[in-house]
Amino acid sequence: MCRSMAELSSVAQAETMIRQNVGDFGVDKVLLGQASGRILRQRVMAERDQPPYDRVMMDGIAIRHGDVRSFHIHGTQRAGAPVGRLVADDSCLNVTTGAILPEGSDTVVPIERLSQQNDQFSLEPGYTPEAGQFVHARASDCRTGDVLLEPGIRLNAPALAVLAANGYARVEVARSPSIGILSTGDELVPVEGPVQEWEIRRSNEQALAGALRTRGLTDIHIDWAGDDLDDTIRALEKALSVHDVLILSGGVSMGSFDYVPRALERLGVERIFHKIAQRPGKPMWFGIGRQGQRIFALPGNPVSALTCCMRYVVPSLLTAMGARTPERFTVMLDAAIPLIPTLARFVPVRLRHDARGCACVSPQPASTSGDFSHLATTDGFVELPPGEGSASAGTAAVFHGW
Amino acid sequence: MCRSMAELSSVAQAETMIRQNVGDFGVDKVLLGQASGRILRQRVMAERDQPPYDRVMMDGIAIRHGDVRSFHIHGTQRAGAPVGRLVADDSCLNVTTGAILPEGSDTVVPIERLSQQNDQFSLEPGYTPEAGQFVHARASDCRTGDVLLEPGIRLNAPALAVLAANGYARVEVARSPSIGILSTGDELVPVEGPVQEWEIRRSNEQALAGALRTRGLTDIHIDWAGDDLDDTIRALEKALSVHDVLILSGGVSMGSFDYVPRALERLGVERIFHKIAQRPGKPMWFGIGRQGQRIFALPGNPVSALTCCMRYVVPSLLTAMGARTPERFTVMLDAAIPLIPTLARFVPVRLRHDARGCACVSPQPASTSGDFSHLATTDGFVELPPGEGSASAGTAAVFHGW
Repeated sequence: MCRSMAELSSVAQAETMIRQNVGDFGVDKVLLGQASGRILRQRVMAERDQPPYDRVMMDGIAIRHGDVRSFHIHGTQRAGAPVGRLVADDSCLNVTTGAILPEGSDTVVPIERLSQQNDQFSLEPGYTPEAGQFVHARASDCRTGDVLLEPGIRLNAPALAVLAANGYARVEVARSPSIGILSTGDELVPVEGPVQEWEIRRSNEQALAGALRTRGLTDIHIDWAGDDLDDTIRALEKALSVHDVLILSGGVSMGSFDYVPRALERLGVERIFHKIAQRPGKPMWFGIGRQGQRIFALPGNPVSALTCCMRYVVPSLLTAMGARTPERFTVMLDAAIPLIPTLARFVPVRLRHDARGCACVSPQPASTSGDFSHLATTDGFVELPPGEGSASAGTAAVFHGW
Repeated sequence: MCRSMAELSSVAQAETMIRQNVGDFGVDKVLLGQASGRILRQRVMAERDQPPYDRVMMDGIAIRHGDVRSFHIHGTQRAGAPVGRLVADDSCLNVTTGAILPEGSDTVVPIERLSQQNDQFSLEPGYTPEAGQFVHARASDCRTGDVLLEPGIRLNAPALAVLAANGYARVEVARSPSIGILSTGDELVPVEGPVQEWEIRRSNEQALAGALRTRGLTDIHIDWAGDDLDDTIRALEKALSVHDVLILSGGVSMGSFDYVPRALERLGVERIFHKIAQRPGKPMWFGIGRQGQRIFALPGNPVSALTCCMRYVVPSLLTAMGARTPERFTVMLDAAIPLIPTLARFVPVRLRHDARGCACVSPQPASTSGDFSHLATTDGFVELPPGEGSASAGTAAVFHGW
């Protein structure tokens, strides 16, 4: 009765099958103040030249560059005021940082380089301004219509500045799918209240929801079902009717009380795959509901559930939302990790960047797939392919953060 | 009139002076579902042994280890049910993953290793179970009262699982300070609506607010004041009366219309320092209000304002909130950057981890401190000390992300 390895999908196959089936959740138009961290879904163009005018970069005076060393001041060009004008080559205007450069002037002399007597400003002895200095020339950063941001980026602080500067009071971002998290198991009781010796508190849903929330996936609803086929069908039917994505934990291995695959089949959910050649997380199940809902059924073990969530669920949802940059990156092992001939391995690690800039990770293998207490001292996990022997210290591996 | 370098604080001095004055904003007790990404402010202890019982790790049968190879089944030990008991050495109980191990048994045989005839389970020919296999022993992960989480960590997914599993329905986290962002300048107009040639849209506040929000600092209020001393005093007075922290952009350099330092002095704000030996961001100002409010007055240039925010404001607020781990880390330059003899330099970079795990950065220097359009294609900036010549490719530098 031992299952042959041929029934398992590889990590790459599973990832491909999910990506081919994960769809799109559409676009939201949100106020700029609510866009931080969201995934951009439109092109952003320059509303105007940037800077939109020859912009004064220092407080001082605006002059026409030449041999004159003393200037009669005849007014002030403040930031935010319409453009003024020099009246003669030996005249100047007081200017403030951010002001438009007065017509007839081409150069700014900072206040620190000047001495003043009544209405007359004189250059510091021995100081010669460079022509055009301290002027941020119109259109030197970009021109009207230039593409400034492409879809797929996560909106960080500089991107928000670009949006604001170009008049985007509202911005098109990826809609967050509605996600239902359903944990199953008669042994699970709420976080609050009494707990019997043979019971454990419901913790997976908090870990999964937290992982999703920190990635901007915030539309999350949590439910629970006991180890009963009818109960499981009822809970799933309700969840399928309201959510784009279901994440289930528990009930997907071979036991007689693992009702989840059976309940999903009864509800017409098409199984795309069941079981991946990996440890932890081998029993993972993925399918598509009748209305296109994506169903990720993860093992109930806390380490397995969270690892599968970070390895498959989060990246595929972000891809579906149009994100272009995967969050994973390559790191270097600082200690050996035994490989498994037939299974990919995911091993919790601590990450640090050493004094030379190397992203080094220290493996912190769990004693069992149920041991999650120690995971909170780790930063994520590395992924190692199936193989003989060990991945030695110094081996490069892909890192996924919690 | 040229200012001597002796009046400037170094980057390290500025950082120390801020840290010594940044205070604490207290503690919030929040529901677990709202704790993701918050900074933990309490110790978290194990409510029970973990696992709380000898826990079955596979679906199968529970037996007493010995020479017997065929077992009479007399019931089921389901997950979530009170503990059962083996009646004899050749008896077994059906068990499900997560169940408590029945009394009298010590070993689990997975369903895949068994054949069944009526009420009799037989081991696969040639298969010998190991004593104690597939049992996750009580207290093997931790014991009641063990410290599982220390204050100062940012609550990630595994930490949320630990909290839930140990009955923490509410958790003490750092309170987010109330932050007022005030930009000043007559040239600034709203993101929406008409804009004249000599005006620019208000973008700094969006960048600063976005940077704070992605770090969990979400209690943010935005305001604006024109270049007028009374107007600035009024706006600052209002902001000081309601916020723990003020972040100002603009109005801190030497010009006659830079009212911010004067207005702050009138309002009794104690100046801790003004100007740092750095580019960009030299005019930065920091002070403490009469009720202990922290006031960061940043230059108005977008690149300067955002760089100062990420270099000083965000890290000091997170430290004040009890966060233990700074977000900065060391990276390696992939191209040379000219140094400045008297000023530290902050240079925007793109970050990538190469195939060996090296965190490499490509310098993307801004053409001027007003050029922020190109910042959106960068990941953060590196910090280089004052010096002669250049930092060559291969030099290690501290990286700060946007």
